[in-house]
Amino acid sequence: MKVQGQALRPLRETASRDAVVVIDQRLLPHRLAFETLATPEAVHHAIREMVVRGAPLIGATAAYGLALALKPDASDCAVEEQAEWLKAARPTAVNLAWALDRVVRHVRALPAGERAEAAWVLAAAIAEEDVEVNRRIGEHGLPLLRDIAARKGVGPGRPLHVLTHCNAGWLATVDWGTATSPIYQGHEAGLPLHVWVDETRPRNQGASLTAWELGQAGVPHTLIADNAGGHLMQHGQVDLVIVGCDRVTARGDVCNKIGTYLKALAAHDNGVPFFVAMPTSTLDLSVADGLAEIPIEERRGREVTHLAGLAASGEVIEVAIAPAGTPAANPAFDVTPARLVTALITERGVVPAEERALHALMAQTP
Amino acid sequence: MKVQGQALRPLRETASRDAVVVIDQRLLPHRLAFETLATPEAVHHAIREMVVRGAPLIGATAAYGLALALKPDASDCAVEEQAEWLKAARPTAVNLAWALDRVVRHVRALPAGERAEAAWVLAAAIAEEDVEVNRRIGEHGLPLLRDIAARKGVGPGRPLHVLTHCNAGWLATVDWGTATSPIYQGHEAGLPLHVWVDETRPRNQGASLTAWELGQAGVPHTLIADNAGGHLMQHGQVDLVIVGCDRVTARGDVCNKIGTYLKALAAHDNGVPFFVAMPTSTLDLSVADGLAEIPIEERRGREVTHLAGLAASGEVIEVAIAPAGTPAANPAFDVTPARLVTALITERGVVPAEERALHALMAQTP
Repeated sequence: MKVQGQALRPLRETASRDAVVVIDQRLLPHRLAFETLATPEAVHHAIREMVVRGAPLIGATAAYGLALALKPDASDCAVEEQAEWLKAARPTAVNLAWALDRVVRHVRALPAGERAEAAWVLAAAIAEEDVEVNRRIGEHGLPLLRDIAARKGVGPGRPLHVLTHCNAGWLATVDWGTATSPIYQGHEAGLPLHVWVDETRPRNQGASLTAWELGQAGVPHTLIADNAGGHLMQHGQVDLVIVGCDRVTARGDVCNKIGTYLKALAAHDNGVPFFVAMPTSTLDLSVADGLAEIPIEERRGREVTHLAGLAASGEVIEVAIAPAGTPAANPAFDVTPARLVTALITERGVVPAEERALHALMAQTP
Repeated sequence: MKVQGQALRPLRETASRDAVVVIDQRLLPHRLAFETLATPEAVHHAIREMVVRGAPLIGATAAYGLALALKPDASDCAVEEQAEWLKAARPTAVNLAWALDRVVRHVRALPAGERAEAAWVLAAAIAEEDVEVNRRIGEHGLPLLRDIAARKGVGPGRPLHVLTHCNAGWLATVDWGTATSPIYQGHEAGLPLHVWVDETRPRNQGASLTAWELGQAGVPHTLIADNAGGHLMQHGQVDLVIVGCDRVTARGDVCNKIGTYLKALAAHDNGVPFFVAMPTSTLDLSVADGLAEIPIEERRGREVTHLAGLAASGEVIEVAIAPAGTPAANPAFDVTPARLVTALITERGVVPAEERALHALMAQTP
């Protein structure tokens, strides 16, 4: 996607192919700054501290991290150890494990001396694949948007109102985004669209990333508190919801950013379609019951009690919003039961959130 | 209630009975500061700008405002005009109109020369009544908490987990609070309690007011993002929800702070009791369908895009959390349909959120 007219990706290789350059997403929207990750430690840190975030993006970034890790030692033991260590940077999104396992499987078949280079080439392929996967999610999702637009009488002065939670935009992927891909493709094709952007506390990915992305792309949008979406749906102001995901189970339970479940409940209560954009790399067929089986990352309470923003002085300053010493809990994800999901939009097509449909989808030759 | 061991109310008369002193709630939890309101304009401003907030508190404060307004001119025309002007300070909570209408009815029966003093005396009575009403809400609510505690095996090491949204604490009333009254009374009686405090974006009344109140009272609590409550309920970590209200309709629809509806949906989906603490002054029998009929205040978008907090420098600083110029919508309340409400806890007793029960309750001699 473009920023101020210039094509940009949140992850790219250096020309010398010995490091990757990422956007430091902790600084957006106030500063667009880049960080060069030249060591596996730097990659691990960038994932853990959310310099990069978003299930697809952390998968691709971690693959590069493993390639960097194999340069000094590509023994079987090192391959396993480094992959496990990178996986542990964040526990919930399955794409991280998916990308690393793919690299491990690939290089284990090769002599140790070729592994680092092969891992790098595969990481690049995973990144490029992600772009194509997301482009196709947009292709499959756009007809759903068009159908609803037709039913709702969308036209000049009456845009299609889409609500999204968190950032499942191009910043969360290598390009296009997942949930935003049908939105960007619809916007480019002239479909009148307006996006309700959930702020997404506590880390404000909606306010800081999705609002910024949509602004750069010229897509009309309005920021709302996470609390407001139910009210808007009750008043017919949301035509559909579309979100990304961090892990989808065999029966279609969707693990995504904390608060997604509340929006799914409200959508269900008001007859609003609730779509999940899901690259099939996010599907974890080894897990059925999302509530019981997916580990939910618990992050620092300080993310709830403090937040950073741009002061009038032009500095980014952290402020406390609660009494000193207030205890805080900070689960980062929740699970939306399959019964609340209208459909999953994948790069292979649109499927219901049901076990048989998901197995059939995965049995197809891609 | 007490602050640092000293009894304090968010609204009190000056010794000379020519002004009221309120806590400036915009500055909490970082500063406990008072503002003296000596003119009707100051009262109107304090209500509109949320120096004072909370349905019961703005009712009592407005009654004093009308008393101040009648000093220079207590003609029939002035009584009506001033009351209507004060009502317009905020549109949603019905207690504001309830208190002002009560003063109007009372003084219209008196000669103009006696009206200002009579209004002041009635305002004081309304404030004292509010304390007693809230005390009784606690008395009626506590047995509900005890029942659930008994069923859940609450005891040392296993507190009763209560979730609340916004601030329906003593800061929102003249004393005790509504939703917090059973909590404070249970805590004083030795019931082991733990409160999940919803942050309550965009104005953070949970993080800044409820967390502060509970901390001062020594009630164990944990601050959470508004997004987290559904997840906690899915995992059995919430035993009941209790919230306040700004207006309840004849059929039991509950208008309360934006986001309440989402918590009610999650409570319903997880079999968690959802209680609403309601002084009967909040009941509006003239309205049936809360969604269609209650005017929802739309506040400035800047409350969503900017927020104030305590910087490391010790100053309270406002920061932007979204890209400059991001449009924001800010509905301040939503409506929870009666079907999602387990019961209403009033000063007259506990009733289901149903038309017949509410009419019967109001037909009782108080």
